[in-house]
Parts: sequence; structure tokens; C-alpha cells
Amino acid sequence: MDRVLRIGLLGCGTVGGGVVTLLSGEVDDITARTGARLEVVRIAVRDLDKASARGLPVSRDVFTTDPSAVVEDPDVDVVVEVMGGLDPAGGLIRRALELGKPVVTANKELVADAGPELYEAARAAGVDFAYEAAVAGAIPIIRPLKESLAGDRVTRVVGILNGTTNYILTKMSEEGADYAEVLADAQRLGYAEADPTADVGGHDAAAKCAILASLAFDTVVHASDVFREGIAAITATDLRVADRLGYVVKLVGIASEVDDRVGARVHPVFLPKEHPLASVRDAFNAVYVEAEAAGQLMFYGRGAGAMPTASAVVGDVIDVARNLLQTARGAAESVHRAKAIRPIEDLQTQYYVLLAVDDQAGVLADVARTFGDHGVSIAQVWQEGAGDSAQLVLITHRAREGDLQQTVGALAAMTNVRSVASVLRVESEVFAS
Amino acid sequence: MDRVLRIGLLGCGTVGGGVVTLLSGEVDDITARTGARLEVVRIAVRDLDKASARGLPVSRDVFTTDPSAVVEDPDVDVVVEVMGGLDPAGGLIRRALELGKPVVTANKELVADAGPELYEAARAAGVDFAYEAAVAGAIPIIRPLKESLAGDRVTRVVGILNGTTNYILTKMSEEGADYAEVLADAQRLGYAEADPTADVGGHDAAAKCAILASLAFDTVVHASDVFREGIAAITATDLRVADRLGYVVKLVGIASEVDDRVGARVHPVFLPKEHPLASVRDAFNAVYVEAEAAGQLMFYGRGAGAMPTASAVVGDVIDVARNLLQTARGAAESVHRAKAIRPIEDLQTQYYVLLAVDDQAGVLADVARTFGDHGVSIAQVWQEGAGDSAQLVLITHRAREGDLQQTVGALAAMTNVRSVASVLRVESEVFAS
Ligand SMILES: NC(=O)c1ccc[n+]([C@@H]2O[C@H](COP(=O)([O-])OP(=O)(O)OC[C@H]3O[C@@H](n4cnc5c(N)ncnc54)[C@H](OP(=O)(O)O)[C@@H]3O)[C@@H](O)[C@H]2O)c1
Ligand SMILES: NC(=O)c1ccc[n+]([C@@H]2O[C@H](COP(=O)([O-])OP(=O)(O)OC[C@H]3O[C@@H](n4cnc5c(N)ncnc54)[C@H](OP(=O)(O)O)[C@@H]3O)[C@@H](O)[C@H]2O)c1
Repeated sequence: MDRVLRIGLLGCGTVGGGVVTLLSGEVDDITARTGARLEVVRIAVRDLDKASARGLPVSRDVFTTDPSAVVEDPDVDVVVEVMGGLDPAGGLIRRALELGKPVVTANKELVADAGPELYEAARAAGVDFAYEAAVAGAIPIIRPLKESLAGDRVTRVVGILNGTTNYILTKMSEEGADYAEVLADAQRLGYAEADPTADVGGHDAAAKCAILASLAFDTVVHASDVFREGIAAITATDLRVADRLGYVVKLVGIASEVDDRVGARVHPVFLPKEHPLASVRDAFNAVYVEAEAAGQLMFYGRGAGAMPTASAVVGDVIDVARNLLQTARGAAESVHRAKAIRPIEDLQTQYYVLLAVDDQAGVLADVARTFGDHGVSIAQVWQEGAGDSAQLVLITHRAREGDLQQTVGALAAMTNVRSVASVLRVESEVFAS
Repeated sequence: MDRVLRIGLLGCGTVGGGVVTLLSGEVDDITARTGARLEVVRIAVRDLDKASARGLPVSRDVFTTDPSAVVEDPDVDVVVEVMGGLDPAGGLIRRALELGKPVVTANKELVADAGPELYEAARAAGVDFAYEAAVAGAIPIIRPLKESLAGDRVTRVVGILNGTTNYILTKMSEEGADYAEVLADAQRLGYAEADPTADVGGHDAAAKCAILASLAFDTVVHASDVFREGIAAITATDLRVADRLGYVVKLVGIASEVDDRVGARVHPVFLPKEHPLASVRDAFNAVYVEAEAAGQLMFYGRGAGAMPTASAVVGDVIDVARNLLQTARGAAESVHRAKAIRPIEDLQTQYYVLLAVDDQAGVLADVARTFGDHGVSIAQVWQEGAGDSAQLVLITHRAREGDLQQTVGALAAMTNVRSVASVLRVESEVFAS
């Protein structure tokens, strides 16, 4: 007779519904791979009345509005948290681990806030805590970082971690359209939320960047440690300049370790067209990893959506269930050592600066002198437009962010500079080959 | 006190040397992740005299020329096979498994020949058999297929699985150069072997394609089941036509399951420029996976080289060592069910056909009639050149390979067709979005 492992689900919305569908679809294969039949025995939701409307192949009476009841139920062997939010999700997961129940979650917000701590609680309890779906949906990235690269040293992670903003930037660049216009379209098509702040402001990407940084560098990076700029200020001009210089504009999360300090930042960048991340279009996500021995790796796929995310959750469920049956634990994270966060001022990179200027002799020399005074050297500069629409486009050599910011402050104060229209970082060094 | 697990190495060449280097480099991190210190205690090589020349941080007396002694040594807990070849590697691995020792291998030839059988032997012995490095070097692809997608259903795998041929095709396309010329360059630069047959003939890619097909579709596909065509016949004209029509030419391995029959083939294809695989340049490898729930995924990185391959081997070693300590086993492959192999004649795809023809009225009509007579419909046709160098370029609609082959036979027999210069498959349907 088959063994049975019983799953308790916290939440049954977009992702939870997909999990139930997958678990009840591929039963034979999943049973073979797990070594036990997986059965969803309890599901917590907010609204019981929706239950019958969910159209899922589970009986009505598995639903409850009390998520604690799911966690505490002695019949529940494995807890899957797909309700979202910090609270009560965090407390419920802690309690499940305390009870010796492995936990699978898709909750990026929570893992960014408390992942290493929850992982340690799981380690203490001798069970698994898995969160593959929390970063980049269907793309296996947690497992490669934890397992495949366990004998290697990761030096940098660069990810396109938010589908909505990548969709908007793709459309802006392919249609030459402006931000507001494309955002409105994306909202109409359901690619962007009515309140798009979490996406376009880079908050969602920052949570994922924090998770990747913590895991890649065996430390604790919170979302609030991640320097963050969104895409709302990107203009059609920026995209045109980028294209002309051989770049595309992408919103990326970058985590790196330099001299034992961890840098983690989310902002739009100029990325060379030859870079593997440059061809990631529409709502796709991708994570590019550099490791000392493995070299350059990239992982590409769908970062969200009911079934892609559910696929990642169920992969984790099979994993933790299999380990539970063997009273074993899955791959370990290294000890999370405290490491200093590198302030953004210490970043060294190239910059693109667009200035609206008075169209008069000497302005270029004045601007160049301001850059030079702050130790920022100019790689390329040209004027666009004339008269009232005169603009200077500048690309700097590698400079310190702190120096660049002082330069920008000084530029803004110049009488013949009307405004600093754009400042974007240029990542020329993340080359594929 | 730390526990110690003792590694026996079969082979210490390119990959083996890298494994020793990695294991002796990141000792603390590896110990933390494994839960035990990993120590290389025995190494089999052919030539003991090379031992001191290897410059590796192991003492001379761990080397032996008797690989059996490594496997049988009661001091060896984990066996790492990096000697290559079917024999004696296969027998040594079987024996190690019999002795209850987990095995890690990078041997694509052997895994393509006997992977599922070795996996079953490992299952029977209750230990792990891991082979991440056997396909696409540093790229995690075995683990994602086995673990991340364990709850999903893979429908197609398309891989750029050979670095040498991808390098040659990239150079041909970027420099407009011909095959022989680029091959000679590649040999001079060490990107291609003196005898390039295994690479350019598609044999190496076919072994990897067999491994991917077996794993993706839970069955047994041998390298000899894989339909195979190499790149030696590709010309600068083919690349020019491809470019003009929005394609690149890549040597790919494609595995798919249609109606319970598994197709596995390695050959050059026209691939749309927008496809994520199209931007994989130089010696990089990539594997594109379609799964029902996860959608489209791609995994990109270095397919060979001492350190990239060693990184994958050591990731596996940590995994199997950790499981050994817990008397557990890692992720399971599903039962390998026998499935029919779909003959290439049943393939349905589009084709590009280049004909050298007599430059006279009626030849196009004659050619079109020949296609029509065999049930192959033409999507696009035009003439290039004139007089003695007149050529017809044709792109078909989707057709059955069997019908296309009969068409080609009939074309070759036509008096006004001087030769069938090229026939290549066009994969328009593997779109990213
Ligand atoms: N959607 C995606 O594409 C995606 C991708 C990656 C990760 N994630 C993550 O997956 C998690 C779930 O996302 P989702 O899109 O599935 O959210 P969702 O559609 O809003 O579903 C949330 C579910 O949790 C239930 N729930 C919420 N608060 C509850 C409470 N206090 N008590 C009981 N039940 C409660 C809701 O009940 P009702 O059904 O009764 O409202 C609903 O079933 C989030 O952490 C999200 O960040 C989502
Ligand atoms: N090289 C790559 O980039 C790469 C990438 C992926 C997978 N792989 C796979 O990894 C495996 C090893 O490749 P490699 O490039 O490291 O090969 P290699 O450089 O030729 O090394 C082979 C090693 O095995 C030893 N050896 C061979 N036959 C032996 C025997 N009968 N008894 C004892 N020792 C024996 C050799 O001894 P001596 O040193 O004394 O000659 C040598 O140390 C192969 O299966 C290959 O397909 C290689």
C-alpha cells in the first residue's frame, strides 16, 4: 500500500489554486517521484463562500478560515504557505517548523524579511524550509545557488526580477512609446496592477534581490538594505540614446560581494545588447550568475503566473516530502554570517547623464569642467537638439557613485544647465564572453 | 570533531584536476554545506609519473594506476568517475554502487549508454548516482529536470549542447566565412580537436540529447536512437539565407514526446532570431525546456572546461555526501518506462531547400510540381544568381520528413536540377513568447 503524506495549504488564490490543480493532475508521476501519495487535506482561505466557486478537485469541507487550525492539525504533515504578506504568514510558518513540519512558501516579501531566520528555525527543527517560487516564479534559481554551486563561489548575481517592468521597458523600446502611455496599456491588458507602485518602484524586485544576495553570499540582506530606483522616470529619449550606443535599458537587481561587503541594488541600467540578459523580453524574468569556477550562467523563464509559480511550489513540495519520509533534510545553506552592506556611494560604474542646457558657446566646456572638478572623467559627449531643446548627452568612464552624485548636484546648480533630465548607470562590464 | 567523508577519484585529468582544486580550496564552506569534511584519499590515473607534475595539493602516494583499488578501498566513501569512456568506467561504477558507495560522474558517453540502468542499480543499493556534469558542463540542467520540474510535465527540450560547433557557427555567421576556414582557425586556437569528428559530426551532442530525452520523458533513449546530422555541409550561403529570413543557424539537440513516442534528434536548424537560444554565441551552451505548467525555461552557461565542469561535479559530490551522511537518497527519477522512438520520417517541420538549377524558363514550375506531387507545400521560393550559378531557394510549409525526403530524391533526379545543395530543418515554432 502506498504511503500518504498530507498537505495543508495556507491560501488558495492564484498560486494555491494552481498547486491543487498540479497535485491532483500528475498523481502517478508525483507519487513515484515522492515515494508517497500527496494529498491536500486542509486549506485555509479568508472567504469560505468562494470555496465552491474555486472549481478545484477537493471537497468543500477541507476549507477553513482558520489558518492556525491547518498548521496545528496533526493530520497535516507538510505546510504550503501561499497566502502572502508578513503577518500572519510568518508566525504560522514559525509554528509549523516548531511542530517539525517542513514548509514550502512562495512569499517573497516574507523570505526577504526573515528568510535566514526561518531557515535557521527549520535547521533547528531538523526539517526543510523551501522557497524556490519566491524568486522568479518557475525559474529554478534557489536550487542552483544552494546545490549546484555549493562547491563554488558566487561573485555576482544580476536579475531581471519583475515581469511588469520588463514588459513596460520592452514595449517602450520596441514602440518608441513613452512610459505613461505603455503603463496605461499594460494596466488595460492586466500586465500591471491598478496600483503599480510595488512593480514600477522596484519594491518587488528589491525583495527578490535581497533573497538572492542573502543566499549567494551566505549572509542576511533585507529588502530595506537594497538600494532602489524604479522606472517611472525613464523616457523615450533614454531608450533612444541607449539603442544608439549599443545598449538596452532593463530594470535589474544586482548583488555582488567586494572585499567582504555585500552590495545589493535595484535600478534601471544600460546593458550591452550582447549581454544574455538584453534579449529577455516582455514579462519574462532571468537571473544571470557569475561564479568563480562555473563562470557565467543564466536562468530564464516565467517569473509569475498561477501555473508557472505552482510548478515551482510543487517541485519544492515533492522535495521536502521525500526528505521527510527519509527523516533527512535537503541541501543546506551555509551559516549566515553578518557582512557589511556596501553603501551605494562606494559603487564604481559608468554613467549616462542627460542635461537640458542653454544652447550657447562654452556650455560644453563648463559642464566638462564640473565633471572634472569632481573626479569624474567623460568617455563620450555630444549635443542633441538646438535652441530651447538643446541637450547634452554624456557617458562617463567608471566613477565612484558618490563623486557622480556630487557632480549631479553641481550640474543642477549651474546657470547654463536648465535641468539634469536623466542619470542612469551603465553596466558595460557584465559581458557574456 | 568534524566528520570526514573520503573521496576516491577515478581519473585526474582536465576535470579531475579541477575537482581536486575546488575541494581543497573552499574547505570551510564545503564542510558547512556538506556536514562533513571532504577529503580526496585515492586517485586512479594511467601514468603515475605525471603525478608530481600535476601540481595538485594532494600527496603523491594517493595516486594509483589501479582504478579497482580505489573502488574497493574500504576507506573510500564516495566515488567520483572522471576518467571517461565506457570501459572500464562502467564496470567500476557498477561495482562501487554494489558496495553501497554513491557515485558522481561527468561521463556523457557512459550515461548516454547506460544511465537509466546505472540509476536503477543505485536505487537498488539505496545510494545516489549523480551526473550533472555529463550534460552541458557547468549548467544545472539535470537537477532542474529531476527536481524543480518533478511536479510538472516536460513537453520539449532543445539544447545547444556542443561548444565547438556553436563556436564555429557563430564565427561563420559573424565573419561570413566558410566552414573549412573557421574549423582550421578553431583548431589552431584549441577550440576544436585535431580530429573534430565527435563534435562536428554531432556525436557528442547526440549523447547529451539521449541523456536529456531519457530524463525528461522517464524512459531509456540511447545515443544510437538519436537521429544525427553534423555541420560539415553548412555553407556561407545557408547562413546568408537564414539571416535574410530572420533566422540563425544552430546545431541543436531536440527531444520531444508526441503521443507516447519520443523523438530525439541532433542536426543544424534555422532558429528564429527572437528565440532565446538564438543569442547563445561562441562556445556557450544552453538548454531550453518547455513544460506544461512552468512554460518556457532556459539554462545557459559554459558547457565544458576544467573549472566549470568541476564546479558541477563538486555540487553533486556535496549533494551525495550529504545524503550519505543522513542515509538518505536524493531526488528520484521516475520509473524508466519503455517508450517507442519516433522515426525521423514522422517528424513534422518546415524545411529550407537550396537547389542548383539550369537557368531556363519552366524550371521553377517543374520544381514546384515535384514538391506538390509529394504533398509538400511551398511557403516561399526565389531565384538567386543566374546562368551557371542559378539557384532556387525554397522554404516549405510544415511537412512530413518522409515526404520531404522523397521530394529531395525526386529533385535530385530532375534533369534541370543540377544538385540539391542544402536541406535544413526550420524550427519556427519554438518561440519564446
Ligand atoms: N501570483 C503570482 O504570480 C505569484 C508569483 C510568485 C509568488 N507569489 C506569491 O505567492 C503568494 C500568494 O500569491 P497569490 O497571487 O496566489 O495571492 P492571492 O491570489 O491573493 O491568494 C491569497 C490566498 O490566501 C488567502 N488568505 C489571505 N490572507 C488570509 C488569511 N489571513 N487567512 C486565511 N486565508 C488568507 C486568500 O483567501 P481568499 O481566497 O478567501 O481571498 C487567498 O486564497 C504571495 O506571497 C505572492 O507574493 C505569487
Ligand atoms: N573536459 C571537459 O571539458 C569535460 C566536460 C564535461 C564532461 N567531461 C567528461 O569528463 C570525463 C573526463 O574528461 P577529461 O577531459 O578530464 O579527460 P582527461 O583529461 O583525458 O582525463 C582522464 C583521466 O583519467 C585517467 N584515466 C583514463 N583511463 C584510465 C584507466 N584505464 N585507468 C586509470 N586512469 C585512467 C587519465 O590518467 P592520466 O592522467 O595518467 O592520463 C586522466 O587522469 C570524460 O567522461 C569527459 O567526457 C569533460
